[in-house]
Amino acid sequence: MPKSALRYAAKVDLDKPAWEHENLHNRWHPDVPAVGTIKNGETVKIECVDWTGGQIKNDDSANDVRDVDLTRIHYLTGPFEIETAEPGDVLVVDIQDVQPLDDHPWGFTGIFSRENGGGFLDDTYPKPAKAIWDFEGINCSSRHIPGVRFAGLIHPGILGCAPSAEVLKTWNDREGQLITECSHMDKVVALPPEPKSVHVGSTEGDIKEKVGREGARTVPGRPEHGGNCDIKNLSRGSKVYLPVHVKGAKFSVGDLHFSQGDGEISFCGAIEMAGVITIKFSVMKGGVAHLGMKSPIYIPGPVEPQFGPGRYIYFEGFSVDEHGKQYYLDTTVAYRQTCFRVIEYLKRYGYDDYQIYLLLSCAPIQGHVAGIVDVPNSCTTIGLPMDIFDFDIRPEAPTGKRELGSCAFAS
Amino acid sequence: MPKSALRYAAKVDLDKPAWEHENLHNRWHPDVPAVGTIKNGETVKIECVDWTGGQIKNDDSANDVRDVDLTRIHYLTGPFEIETAEPGDVLVVDIQDVQPLDDHPWGFTGIFSRENGGGFLDDTYPKPAKAIWDFEGINCSSRHIPGVRFAGLIHPGILGCAPSAEVLKTWNDREGQLITECSHMDKVVALPPEPKSVHVGSTEGDIKEKVGREGARTVPGRPEHGGNCDIKNLSRGSKVYLPVHVKGAKFSVGDLHFSQGDGEISFCGAIEMAGVITIKFSVMKGGVAHLGMKSPIYIPGPVEPQFGPGRYIYFEGFSVDEHGKQYYLDTTVAYRQTCFRVIEYLKRYGYDDYQIYLLLSCAPIQGHVAGIVDVPNSCTTIGLPMDIFDFDIRPEAPTGKRELGSCAFAS
Amino acid sequence: MPKSALRYAAKVDLDKPAWEHENLHNRWHPDVPAVGTIKNGETVKIECVDWTGGQIKNDDSANDVRDVDLTRIHYLTGPFEIETAEPGDVLVVDIQDVQPLDDHPWGFTGIFSRENGGGFLDDTYPKPAKAIWDFEGINCSSRHIPGVRFAGLIHPGILGCAPSAEVLKTWNDREGQLITECSHMDKVVALPPEPKSVHVGSTEGDIKEKVGREGARTVPGRPEHGGNCDIKNLSRGSKVYLPVHVKGAKFSVGDLHFSQGDGEISFCGAIEMAGVITIKFSVMKGGVAHLGMKSPIYIPGPVEPQFGPGRYIYFEGFSVDEHGKQYYLDTTVAYRQTCFRVIEYLKRYGYDDYQIYLLLSCAPIQGHVAGIVDVPNSCTTIGLPMDIFDFDIRPEAPTGKRELGSCAFAS
Amino acid sequence: MPKSALRYAAKVDLDKPAWEHENLHNRWHPDVPAVGTIKNGETVKIECVDWTGGQIKNDDSANDVRDVDLTRIHYLTGPFEIETAEPGDVLVVDIQDVQPLDDHPWGFTGIFSRENGGGFLDDTYPKPAKAIWDFEGINCSSRHIPGVRFAGLIHPGILGCAPSAEVLKTWNDREGQLITECSHMDKVVALPPEPKSVHVGSTEGDIKEKVGREGARTVPGRPEHGGNCDIKNLSRGSKVYLPVHVKGAKFSVGDLHFSQGDGEISFCGAIEMAGVITIKFSVMKGGVAHLGMKSPIYIPGPVEPQFGPGRYIYFEGFSVDEHGKQYYLDTTVAYRQTCFRVIEYLKRYGYDDYQIYLLLSCAPIQGHVAGIVDVPNSCTTIGLPMDIFDFDIRPEAPTGKRELGSCAFAS
Repeated sequence: MPKSALRYAAKVDLDKPAWEHENLHNRWHPDVPAVGTIKNGETVKIECVDWTGGQIKNDDSANDVRDVDLTRIHYLTGPFEIETAEPGDVLVVDIQDVQPLDDHPWGFTGIFSRENGGGFLDDTYPKPAKAIWDFEGINCSSRHIPGVRFAGLIHPGILGCAPSAEVLKTWNDREGQLITECSHMDKVVALPPEPKSVHVGSTEGDIKEKVGREGARTVPGRPEHGGNCDIKNLSRGSKVYLPVHVKGAKFSVGDLHFSQGDGEISFCGAIEMAGVITIKFSVMKGGVAHLGMKSPIYIPGPVEPQFGPGRYIYFEGFSVDEHGKQYYLDTTVAYRQTCFRVIEYLKRYGYDDYQIYLLLSCAPIQGHVAGIVDVPNSCTTIGLPMDIFDFDIRPEAPTGKRELGSCAFAS
Repeated sequence: MPKSALRYAAKVDLDKPAWEHENLHNRWHPDVPAVGTIKNGETVKIECVDWTGGQIKNDDSANDVRDVDLTRIHYLTGPFEIETAEPGDVLVVDIQDVQPLDDHPWGFTGIFSRENGGGFLDDTYPKPAKAIWDFEGINCSSRHIPGVRFAGLIHPGILGCAPSAEVLKTWNDREGQLITECSHMDKVVALPPEPKSVHVGSTEGDIKEKVGREGARTVPGRPEHGGNCDIKNLSRGSKVYLPVHVKGAKFSVGDLHFSQGDGEISFCGAIEMAGVITIKFSVMKGGVAHLGMKSPIYIPGPVEPQFGPGRYIYFEGFSVDEHGKQYYLDTTVAYRQTCFRVIEYLKRYGYDDYQIYLLLSCAPIQGHVAGIVDVPNSCTTIGLPMDIFDFDIRPEAPTGKRELGSCAFAS
Repeated sequence: MPKSALRYAAKVDLDKPAWEHENLHNRWHPDVPAVGTIKNGETVKIECVDWTGGQIKNDDSANDVRDVDLTRIHYLTGPFEIETAEPGDVLVVDIQDVQPLDDHPWGFTGIFSRENGGGFLDDTYPKPAKAIWDFEGINCSSRHIPGVRFAGLIHPGILGCAPSAEVLKTWNDREGQLITECSHMDKVVALPPEPKSVHVGSTEGDIKEKVGREGARTVPGRPEHGGNCDIKNLSRGSKVYLPVHVKGAKFSVGDLHFSQGDGEISFCGAIEMAGVITIKFSVMKGGVAHLGMKSPIYIPGPVEPQFGPGRYIYFEGFSVDEHGKQYYLDTTVAYRQTCFRVIEYLKRYGYDDYQIYLLLSCAPIQGHVAGIVDVPNSCTTIGLPMDIFDFDIRPEAPTGKRELGSCAFAS
Repeated sequence: MPKSALRYAAKVDLDKPAWEHENLHNRWHPDVPAVGTIKNGETVKIECVDWTGGQIKNDDSANDVRDVDLTRIHYLTGPFEIETAEPGDVLVVDIQDVQPLDDHPWGFTGIFSRENGGGFLDDTYPKPAKAIWDFEGINCSSRHIPGVRFAGLIHPGILGCAPSAEVLKTWNDREGQLITECSHMDKVVALPPEPKSVHVGSTEGDIKEKVGREGARTVPGRPEHGGNCDIKNLSRGSKVYLPVHVKGAKFSVGDLHFSQGDGEISFCGAIEMAGVITIKFSVMKGGVAHLGMKSPIYIPGPVEPQFGPGRYIYFEGFSVDEHGKQYYLDTTVAYRQTCFRVIEYLKRYGYDDYQIYLLLSCAPIQGHVAGIVDVPNSCTTIGLPMDIFDFDIRPEAPTGKRELGSCAFAS
């Protein structure tokens, strides 16, 4: 029997606010009602809005980025009940395809204001900024960052099964403890449950209130189920193995990215987009014990854009911060320094720091842990692919400042 | 005029103790006397002992690892004066080849005792252990870790130019301050200058004493010059750009690795070996300012072993430690958890934890910073290449415990 | 101004016969009227029917393959007039994407009967046969060839600009001469113009008659313009440079392939499909002289599925045929022998010869000219990717016949 | 027990004529006496002279190429008896490494005179020419072809087991028949046995005479045993499966190449060198039947230089020759045309045709059979890696003639 077009398990309407969609939600909680059922072995298409639910526009001002309402995010499509899935099983998620929506061939990368969301380099770059990317089939380019063009390694930033009540309690307890411990710091170290703007599909009343009170925020990925892992090579053709915590798995997906660099450093750092993902679901009974699984695992697809190992410039960073302070094997400090090294290098061509910060967030840079044992210095590296630039960026090549425009800033 | 065999700028004799070699030294200091001069534009061969200077033997006991004398390491070959190089220049190091010594076709990976050196997972795995690797041309295998074989991505763990007196002072100050700050911790957080076993070629007397008193230890890589970066893809065909701090650059190299995994997690974690490196040196006048360089950069060679992006299993780890404690964007914690996830997975086949710990240290695993902004969790990933195993390790494949022997332990 | 959805320069209706489409044609001739105009610099989507115009069905009989009407093929979409293009220019065709049609997620590979079309191995395998492939996002699999699954390297088999009257005459003359020279052979060596079933969009009358009388058949690729090159890596992200022979270029495209092996050996050998191609057109004025161009050139995209160089089994073939006859540097004979070597190898697992013949035609095999000067033997190689099989095909692995079903045959 | 340095199964002395070496021979014949025995499972090093036995010098004249004595070639090292190997077995040859000799860091590429050896394009380029390549670790460059530098994909051009008497007779019969059939052509279509300059190690008298009378020339690869296959990716880490025809296998190897392009078009077209190959031999009993093997197969190593699929310019060629004559699916004609297309393209930069002809012979170009069924045209492609040039060769880049010197010609 011929195979026909695939079933859409969910569609979205970008002309309607995300918060009016019955098949979206923005918290992790076992009681978020399922919006549909998918058979074990079935392949479906699932449409997703961008992670902010359409708050960011295709224009040349970063005012929307500055004013983004972070109590609303992330809008995920689902949850879906997968037939036969039970706690202890592994849900095998075969990502057959990810695509932008036909009539929405663009995405955005944002730098959040230090006062509202921030990002990895916000002490140095506190201002909001934005770049809009136009999709050109497999490639993308931006009027806000001239001189670069690259193929997207397209992927979902978030996918996962719902936590059980027990898992959810673990999350709230341990993140609550961190918040308590760090209450003296002038820093948002974690996000507790937030009733404001909670969205649970069409659900109102007690359940909505409960989810608002208890539901885990979608910002962090978490070891027990994955979630917002922001893994750049979880792309077309990847197979993900997710632990199941509740009957029916209650799978959700969203936060689609056209491309992302390792670290997704500006927080709104991928090329964020609305789109459609095609997934085949299958259930591996008893998989958690069989695989000795504590966190998700995955096998990437074979179609990652390939530049050749010799077509990268690599930068090194260590756990000594920009003020000369030495840290003990602090890989986060090291990675931040590595980012600064790339920014310093690319400024030679006429780019503004904010443009490079945006670019490092979303372009396919390779961020590696190089050495993590040579006390006191962690060493991390970032590989910057030369071939995304339309000019020669090798150290030997002539530099010459270029006219490279500007990203979008707030007014 | 035909090109003839290359000049050896240094040879070593593995039958003689490292500390009797006049062309080796084991501290960073501007006053370590040069052991030879190399022309700008010249290509030479440089032989190196293994980083411990031959303390580790090709046998089946880890007693030598347990008893290693860490005041002696790392034995570096050099320093070499590069003609015309001056402070502010960049020394371009074209690594044309790296090879083991013909009559020494083996290397070692060690797990140091928690009491003597330790490593990234030493709280969990405190015992000394060892694996010997036999080189088979481009490949290697170990009687201590059956079932794996892989091609080496051969590279120097350490290369760099000597610090100036000023740079050296910066190092000693900032690392000293860390030691002071952490004096309450039961942990070696950094290594201060150490007169014991200092080696400065043939030099005795005042200079030796001064180097012992002031010379920076070789363990950490440092932002100002590179040093012990332990970067796995700094391999054959790579071009490294190093800042020059003293007249003549005073370049040293050593700590050759047949292969290493990202992080080099067990500290003595690469496949450590004696060998020979072929380098063409050239001087880029004024390169530091021209490249806006604060730390070394490099361009890898084109011959990295390639498995195909879909031939890895990827594991995820987050900044929640094994006791359930939540950390704030701590990428070091996340990477440690990722390591544990791989160990749990591979144990299914009958490997001992220590065997896997050794394997992760030296096999070509890809350690990536995935997400570093989703408070409070950093997410790191490790890609484990399937094709280094001679059995099928995909999640779907039958598991079945195998007879996989044992690594070497101490008596 | 935000970028909106792309314009469709042509749509097709798979429920309507190809020969009723006004935007399709099936001969090369300068007088085929343009079906639309595209601006220099514009990006458009172009839908295409499969090369046979829907003659082959998604079923389990090869009767349709046996009875295919080859006077009808290939149905191409176009021709399109590209503004500003003139003879001597080069038309730069940036293939931004190629996709199957959403409601048509399947394709076919056929072996034509020796009596009707034939193929590269038709002396040995004269029977018609067929495999239907189901698309699963980037991957495909077939109920007719169990045990394999692979990512498509999706591409157009045919693209080109219309010949000028002069170029057309050259083609008809030289192919006519070959037909004359070979008239004693019992073989279709080339296809002269064929009025039967000629299709020129909506055009009737004199022009249609003229095209039928003079129009070049679409079967061969030709040096002057490309055409049916059947090049497997002319895929997503490729940029093709085509010589322009007539005012407006009159560009046509069709014969979309989900995947193809080097040689496309069974003639209907790719995974043939209907689909949509997204192209940005730009005109390089005077490009033919500037590039010294006699035939098209192209730069492939970066997203080719990657298996790793060591994940292929390579087979060797020489210019000695299966009867032991020696040929002089005949690379065609050598390639045929190489194909036989793969078939013999894969039969060990229980595949039927026809299944393998189909598979070699469409799977991403690498067909190389190895040595072409060692008289009297050309040597060609075929690299068969191991990872498209769900069992281990390395020579060392246990063989064991499997239950591998059957491809479709004619009744 | 520690592994020590490998045994040399053969050494060569480049200061001594090849024809005085007792461990070399230059014909295929079962009676060539073995020069040593290798255990099943043993790994050894084998030194080889270059294929001409030192006839070509590192200088700037092609007189030696013009005057080369082709009755002498190819000097192979061996044959070696492999213990336990018998007819019907497969000899598994694990190529662990291939390296140039330390004191001989150079190689040569030659274009033979049309009157003495010729090559693939000798009708167009009849003159002798030469390029000397200097090895720089994994890379090479040539004073005779400025502007290019690339990593070698180093490999043996020839390896194989001795033919049995029966196999030898088959060869002599079928090649003799071709010579007879083509006796009217003004062309060397195959090389019959040639007593002149036959070399059989130290052997004199009857055996030498017999080998001279019957021994197969080493020029062609042959399906029954491989031989001079000139396969560019049979490199470090490859595993080759060779059919055994005589007791002890009598394995020989030689004709080492630092690099070669697909086709090795100029005949002396690789970067020819003396060197040393490290091989582990093992015997697969009954392997010929088990693998259904008629010709050798191999699995390449994982360290092939990687440029990224999008870093090639591809050229197309068809079976219409340079005089406009149409051939029927003649892939040899098509490949020749493809070569001409590359030459025309690269001439734009100031290279001489002979320089490009040499470069195409030895650089890692990808020569593919694209379409081989679209009557009457075969289509082949050549992928030229952009990154071997030190200037930008993309069609869009500025051209500008450069000062690119000259290859060596005869006086």
